[in-house]
Amino acid sequence: MSIKADFTQGFVRNHWYAAAWSEEITDRPLARRLLGERIVLFRAPDSAVGALEDRCPHRLAPLSMGECADGGLRCGYHGMVFDTQGACIAIPGQDIIPPTARTRAYPAVERYGLVWVWTGVGKADPARLPRIAGYGEQGWAAITGGYQHHHGNYRIEIENLMDPAHTTFLHKETIGNRAAKDVPVQVAQGEHGLKAYRWIENVPPTPLDRKSRDFGESHVDRQISFNFELPATSFVDIAVIPAGMERSEHNLMHGGLRTFSYKFLTPETDSSTHFFWLHLRNFRQDDVEFEDALRASLEKTFNEDKDMVTAIQREQEETGLRQRTAIAIDRAPIMALRMIDRMIEREKNPQLAH
Amino acid sequence: MSIKADFTQGFVRNHWYAAAWSEEITDRPLARRLLGERIVLFRAPDSAVGALEDRCPHRLAPLSMGECADGGLRCGYHGMVFDTQGACIAIPGQDIIPPTARTRAYPAVERYGLVWVWTGVGKADPARLPRIAGYGEQGWAAITGGYQHHHGNYRIEIENLMDPAHTTFLHKETIGNRAAKDVPVQVAQGEHGLKAYRWIENVPPTPLDRKSRDFGESHVDRQISFNFELPATSFVDIAVIPAGMERSEHNLMHGGLRTFSYKFLTPETDSSTHFFWLHLRNFRQDDVEFEDALRASLEKTFNEDKDMVTAIQREQEETGLRQRTAIAIDRAPIMALRMIDRMIEREKNPQLAH
Amino acid sequence: MSIKADFTQGFVRNHWYAAAWSEEITDRPLARRLLGERIVLFRAPDSAVGALEDRCPHRLAPLSMGECADGGLRCGYHGMVFDTQGACIAIPGQDIIPPTARTRAYPAVERYGLVWVWTGVGKADPARLPRIAGYGEQGWAAITGGYQHHHGNYRIEIENLMDPAHTTFLHKETIGNRAAKDVPVQVAQGEHGLKAYRWIENVPPTPLDRKSRDFGESHVDRQISFNFELPATSFVDIAVIPAGMERSEHNLMHGGLRTFSYKFLTPETDSSTHFFWLHLRNFRQDDVEFEDALRASLEKTFNEDKDMVTAIQREQEETGLRQRTAIAIDRAPIMALRMIDRMIEREKNPQLAH
Repeated sequence: MSIKADFTQGFVRNHWYAAAWSEEITDRPLARRLLGERIVLFRAPDSAVGALEDRCPHRLAPLSMGECADGGLRCGYHGMVFDTQGACIAIPGQDIIPPTARTRAYPAVERYGLVWVWTGVGKADPARLPRIAGYGEQGWAAITGGYQHHHGNYRIEIENLMDPAHTTFLHKETIGNRAAKDVPVQVAQGEHGLKAYRWIENVPPTPLDRKSRDFGESHVDRQISFNFELPATSFVDIAVIPAGMERSEHNLMHGGLRTFSYKFLTPETDSSTHFFWLHLRNFRQDDVEFEDALRASLEKTFNEDKDMVTAIQREQEETGLRQRTAIAIDRAPIMALRMIDRMIEREKNPQLAH
Repeated sequence: MSIKADFTQGFVRNHWYAAAWSEEITDRPLARRLLGERIVLFRAPDSAVGALEDRCPHRLAPLSMGECADGGLRCGYHGMVFDTQGACIAIPGQDIIPPTARTRAYPAVERYGLVWVWTGVGKADPARLPRIAGYGEQGWAAITGGYQHHHGNYRIEIENLMDPAHTTFLHKETIGNRAAKDVPVQVAQGEHGLKAYRWIENVPPTPLDRKSRDFGESHVDRQISFNFELPATSFVDIAVIPAGMERSEHNLMHGGLRTFSYKFLTPETDSSTHFFWLHLRNFRQDDVEFEDALRASLEKTFNEDKDMVTAIQREQEETGLRQRTAIAIDRAPIMALRMIDRMIEREKNPQLAH
Repeated sequence: MSIKADFTQGFVRNHWYAAAWSEEITDRPLARRLLGERIVLFRAPDSAVGALEDRCPHRLAPLSMGECADGGLRCGYHGMVFDTQGACIAIPGQDIIPPTARTRAYPAVERYGLVWVWTGVGKADPARLPRIAGYGEQGWAAITGGYQHHHGNYRIEIENLMDPAHTTFLHKETIGNRAAKDVPVQVAQGEHGLKAYRWIENVPPTPLDRKSRDFGESHVDRQISFNFELPATSFVDIAVIPAGMERSEHNLMHGGLRTFSYKFLTPETDSSTHFFWLHLRNFRQDDVEFEDALRASLEKTFNEDKDMVTAIQREQEETGLRQRTAIAIDRAPIMALRMIDRMIEREKNPQLAH
C-alpha cells in the first residue's frame, strides 16, 4: 500500500482557529498568515480585536506596516484608515470614499487568553469555540503563551498528536517511557472527534513524573488519553496515580498528577502550521521554579515533534506519498484524518447532510 | 476595479540606464545584472569602460571572475581575452580565433560621474543621455554615490516617486509633513515625461528643512515638483521659502532652500531595481557635518521606500494584482505608467509612429 | 555552435560510487544523497556498513534521525528496526511484520578507506571497484579524508578535470604555470576511459613544486597526465624531474617528484556533486608540516574549481547552454562526455551491445 500525500485537500474553514495570544494584540498591528490568507491583527481604540486582510485595496501595501491611528488601522503608505469591519473611513486628499475601498474583515473573538479567527463563510457562532477544561478553575495552574512555528502540513501534526506510540522513541528524554512501548491503545470515536487511550500499569514514573511529585520507590499506573476535537484541537489528558490505587474519579483527580495539555493547530499554509499550546495541571500550582522547568521540558518535547514534522513534510513533498506501510498504531490517526476529509467534503458540498 | 500586475510587460530598452558609479569601475571587473542581462563592467587599459555580456562563449564562465590583463578582459578559466567590443583577441594554446569567440558588447558612456549602458537595438546616441540640472555648477553641492538595491519591479518605484501623497505617512520622521496631506496635486504632461506639483502654503518647516536652515518661528511656503522623465529618471525639485515671500525665479533660487533630487531607476530583473540617487542643493554647500546628516536622512527615507516597495512586490506576486481601488492621488502614477507602456509598445511595433 | 546543457541526461548507475570516508560511518547514522536518492549510511553491530533508503516505510521519517539499536537501525519516530538488508525486524506494539515493511538496501563495500555504494540494478561486483595506484604501498604517503560539496552537475566537474589548460589561469597561485599555457595536449582513448597528457619542458618549477623539493636554480621537465576512468574517477599523474634528465621509468619514479591525485565524483543531484579527493606522493612522506601545507594548498586549488563550477552551473541553468564556442583544448573533455553519454545510453538500452 501507498498513501498519497495530497496537500491540495485544503482546510476546514468554518471553524474558530487560534490566531494569536491576546497579549500579542496591541495597537501595533501584527501580520499573521492563517489558512493561507494574510491577515493583520490589531486592537482598536474600543479594545476590540480587528482581523483584516493584510492588504490595502489601494496598492496592496500590507496594513501591518501601518499603525493604529485616526480611529482605526491607518495604512503606512498613503494614510487610508480602516475600521475593524474592513470599511475605509478616511482617504487623505479626498472626501469621497469609493465603494471598492474596503478590505476583508474576519470575525474575531477573545477567549481563554487567545484570539480566535474565523475564515469561513458559515456563521461564526461563538458557541462553537473550543472548550478548555480546568481553565481559570480553582486548583489549576496554567502555562500560557506557548507557540511554535512548525514547517509541516497540519495533517502531519494530527497524526503525531493522535499517536501515543511515538512518545517512547521521539521523546525518550522527557515524556517517553520505554515500559509503554507494547501497551495497546483503545480508540473511541464520537461525533465531534475521537479518543485514543490506554492504561500503562505498574511502570516506573517518567523523568517528568518524578520532577512533578515524589513517588518514592513506588511504580505508577498511568492513564493517557489523546483526544482530538475536530478539526484542530488536540487535548491530552494524563492521570498518574500510585500503582494499584483505585481508579475512582476522585483518585484520578486528587490521588496523583492530572494534566490537561492542549494544542491548537492553525494551518498557516499547505506546508506550515501555527502550533499554540496551553498546559494545565493540578499540582505544584504555585511553584515557579517547577513551572519554568516544566515549560522548558515541554518546549523541548514539542521541538522534537517539530523537527520530525519538518522532516516528514520534506519527504512527503519529495515522494508525493504520506506512507507506504500501515501498522497497528495508525488506527486513531487514520480515523482522525478521515473525519477531517469528511468535514472538508461537506463544506464543499453542503447538500451532503451533516 | 482591479488592475492586474503584469511583470511580463518588460522594459524600455532603447535608453541609457545608469549602470554604476564611475568610481566603481576599475581594472577589477564588476558583475551587474541590468534589464535582466548579466553584464560585466571594467575599465580597459585606455581607461574606456567596457560593458560585456558576463559570460565567456567557451564554457560560460562569468568574465567577472577574470581580470584585466593581456590587453583586455581575460577569462579566469582558460585565459581567453576580450576587448571592449566583445571580440576575442587571444586564446591560449591556439593561433586561430574562431568567429564564434565573441561576447556581446553594450554601448557604455560616462557622464555625471555615472556609467550609462544601452541594452537596446536602436542607435545609442549620447545626446539622449539624461540631463542633470545644477551638476558641476557654481553654487551647488552634490551628494553622489547613492545606491540601493530594491526588491521590486521598477513600476512600483515609479508609482512611489510620482506620488507626493505618500511622504506624509511613509516618511513622517524625515521629509513627511502632516500639514501637506490634503493639499491637491497638479499634473502636467509633456512629450518626454510628466510633472506632479503643488504649493504647500504657510506650513511649519519639516524636520529636514529645520536642519537645513534656521527659519526661526516662521512658517514656510513649499513648492514640490515631482518630475518623471521617460523612462527611468525621477527628478524632484523642491523650493522652500519663508511663508508669503514673492515667488519670483530669483526668490525660489536664492530666498530659501532649493534642492534637486535625482533617482535613476535601472531594472535589474522583473522583480528588482537598481536605485541610484544623486542629491543637489544650493545651501550649506561646504558644511561636511550637515552633508553627512543629510545623506543619512536621505538613506533612511529611501530605505522606507525600499521596505514598502519590497512588500508591494511580494503582494503583487501573491495576488497577481497591482491594486483594487483607485484614489485621487493616483493620477500622475497612472499617467506615467501609461506613457511607459506606450514606449514599450512602440519599441515592439516600430511602425506605430512616435 | 551552441551546445545545450541537458541536465536530464542522468547518471551511469551500474557503478560503485564513493559515498563516504570509512571513518564517517559509525553507529550514528549519516544522511547523504547519492545520484538523487536519499540514503542513510550506518555501521551495524557486526561492523558491516548499511546503506538504506533514508525513509521509514511507515510515515517516511528519515531513518537518519534514528539510532543504531535493537540489532539494527531503529527509526526515531515509532521504533521500527531495520537490518542492513532493509528488512524490518521489529515493530513495537505488534508481532506481525507486514511484507510492505521494508526499505530499499543498496550494496555497500569498503575499500581504500572509502565506502562505495551501488545504486544501479546490475550486479554489484566488487571486482569493478576503482583501483588506486600506490595506495598502501611502500614509499608512498597518502592524504585521505578529502571532501568538498560542489554546486555543479558532475559533467562540469569532468570537463574541469580533463582540461589541463585551466590550471594556468584558475590556479595561478598554486599549481598553475604560465609557462605551460601554450603546450599542446595529447589525447589517448581506451576502453574504460581516456588520457590527456603533455610534457612541459624546461620550465621553472611551480610554487608547489618548490615547496615539495629544492630544485635550486634548475628548471624542470614536467609530465602531467589527466586520466579519466569511466564514469566517475579522475586520476592525475604528475612526474617532475630536473630538466633534461632521461625519462626512464626509474627516473620518473625516483628522480624527482611523483604524485597521484585522485578525485571520485559522486553525483548528489542534477546540480551538485560530492567531490572526494585522495592524494598520494612518493616524497616527504613523513614530513607532517609539509603535508599540512600541501593539504591546505590542495584545498585552496579545489575551492577555486568549486567556485568556477558553481558559477558555470548557474550560467548553464540560466541560458540552457553548455557552451557557445569550442576551442582546441576541448578535445579530451568532449570525448569524456561522449563516453559517458554512450554508457548511459547502453544502460537504458541494454541490447546496444557493449
